Amino acid sequence: MALAIGMDLGGTNARAAAVDDRGRLVRVAKRAHAGGTPEQIADALAACVDEVRAGLGSEASSIDRYGLGVAGQVDSRTGRILVAPQLHWRDVNLRVPLEARLGAPVLLANDLAAAALGEARCGAARGHEDAILVFVGSGVGSGLILGGRIHRGVRGFAGEFGHTKVRPGGRLCNCGERGCLEAYAGGHQLSSRAAEAMAEGRATILQVPAGLRPTPAMLDAAAAKGDALSIELLDDAAELVGVASANLVTELNPAVLVFGGGVLNGSKRMREGIEAALRVNAGRGALSDLLVVDAVLGDDAGVIGAASLARGE
Amino acid sequence: MALAIGMDLGGTNARAAAVDDRGRLVRVAKRAHAGGTPEQIADALAACVDEVRAGLGSEASSIDRYGLGVAGQVDSRTGRILVAPQLHWRDVNLRVPLEARLGAPVLLANDLAAAALGEARCGAARGHEDAILVFVGSGVGSGLILGGRIHRGVRGFAGEFGHTKVRPGGRLCNCGERGCLEAYAGGHQLSSRAAEAMAEGRATILQVPAGLRPTPAMLDAAAAKGDALSIELLDDAAELVGVASANLVTELNPAVLVFGGGVLNGSKRMREGIEAALRVNAGRGALSDLLVVDAVLGDDAGVIGAASLARGE
Repeated sequence: MALAIGMDLGGTNARAAAVDDRGRLVRVAKRAHAGGTPEQIADALAACVDEVRAGLGSEASSIDRYGLGVAGQVDSRTGRILVAPQLHWRDVNLRVPLEARLGAPVLLANDLAAAALGEARCGAARGHEDAILVFVGSGVGSGLILGGRIHRGVRGFAGEFGHTKVRPGGRLCNCGERGCLEAYAGGHQLSSRAAEAMAEGRATILQVPAGLRPTPAMLDAAAAKGDALSIELLDDAAELVGVASANLVTELNPAVLVFGGGVLNGSKRMREGIEAALRVNAGRGALSDLLVVDAVLGDDAGVIGAASLARGE
Repeated sequence: MALAIGMDLGGTNARAAAVDDRGRLVRVAKRAHAGGTPEQIADALAACVDEVRAGLGSEASSIDRYGLGVAGQVDSRTGRILVAPQLHWRDVNLRVPLEARLGAPVLLANDLAAAALGEARCGAARGHEDAILVFVGSGVGSGLILGGRIHRGVRGFAGEFGHTKVRPGGRLCNCGERGCLEAYAGGHQLSSRAAEAMAEGRATILQVPAGLRPTPAMLDAAAAKGDALSIELLDDAAELVGVASANLVTELNPAVLVFGGGVLNGSKRMREGIEAALRVNAGRGALSDLLVVDAVLGDDAGVIGAASLARGE
């Protein structure tokens, strides 16, 4: 039961966990944060690690390096974090202050890459060398495990599935580009699309308090009652995610496709629509053996994958 | 100057070449073939290898395995060729009869995967670990070199770029599916699209002898003279290939994108249109360091890559 410690850094929380080689969380520590400098965030992460190590007692002595999944783009050559929108960071070095506090090496990865590694090692894609995680939450993204390891690409930008173009020149995305998958299917953008349609006077049973926008969960509930606007938006998002997923499958021929993320999980209609479009549009050969599964590790996938990184996997 | 022998099997020719470690062809042998059984084709390939070995004299003695690029889908688990349209093969075993004749192991790959490996080892992408070859000839395809090796996927189906869906539910492809990139941008299909438009009475300066179809080269020449139909077809194909290439770059973050294939090389208009659409639509991060180059090894890329396979690369 070799333990490793993984960390997870999101927009509002820092976490660390001691994870055994089956992916079970033995100790967990968490700190809420309100953003800040890399030094401040390094303090929060190091405090979590210290708490986990203290809980482990003598078992901690053999742990001499760490993994970290970050909600942002990690430069795989330098370890710098190039863009982390939720943390309002551009091109910062978190690794140096964190390694200084921990007195040990830290291996970084994008949070969805870490989550994909977690699912491939200990979750829904366990035992497979080629697995793709497709994630639809407030944003859209992916994590690629190819040949048993995270595929990072030459600079660490790989996996930007949400910013592949599905309607070139189309809707403006949060990233500043046009026609991205996320601009149609991400949770934030689904809310915006619904709010825009309502502002234009489109008929709907959606009822939203003034100043708020309909959530993807509201859209799913309204769609179940036959609301045409909600059905149209969810089905459009599902078709686009399904076709884009099909193209990943056709190009990469993975063993497993894992679906995760709050928006996708929260809408049976969307989940089913995605899989239907996947099955219509993926190449027959690549589809024939493909396992299509739901993520099983939930919010723990990131720390579990980060612990795998620490193990050198 | 360690020599290796690579083989290349297309729809009309079998080739073998002794290749040095810089990718130079030291000896080449070629046999035209008119299709046939795996045993017959194995005879042709083995005759090419024998001729090459005879030309090498004593240098051949150290060569104890071979590589082969095949115009078809190679099952990476069994070495069987699952589909090879130009050879009219479905699920055949070429490796066993070929290894019997050569008395040595043969490593197989898809021809575009072999070509991509050749370009990555000795050609336009030399020195890079992550390189993608995008090929537009009579068909459309790709070869993926990720982490320095061919990415085959779990069954060997990876790289089927031409059968990613760009207009879901759209034009019927030669593969039997609808909306594939190849159904719009492959050379055979470009000819069909032009012939269909002409049969529908569309105005054009294209002049084609009865019973024939306009070639991509004719379209390119007519487009240069302002022919609206030719311009429309070439620009549509270029936009689709460019956006699909952009999406590969966004998802995989390669160091190099290599463009090759007779249709793409034969039309400056298409080549420029593809690159323009690539640059508009690829994710900024992945695009920032990307090298975009033309293939330099031409028809030799396949045997050079096959020789690299034989070297265990």
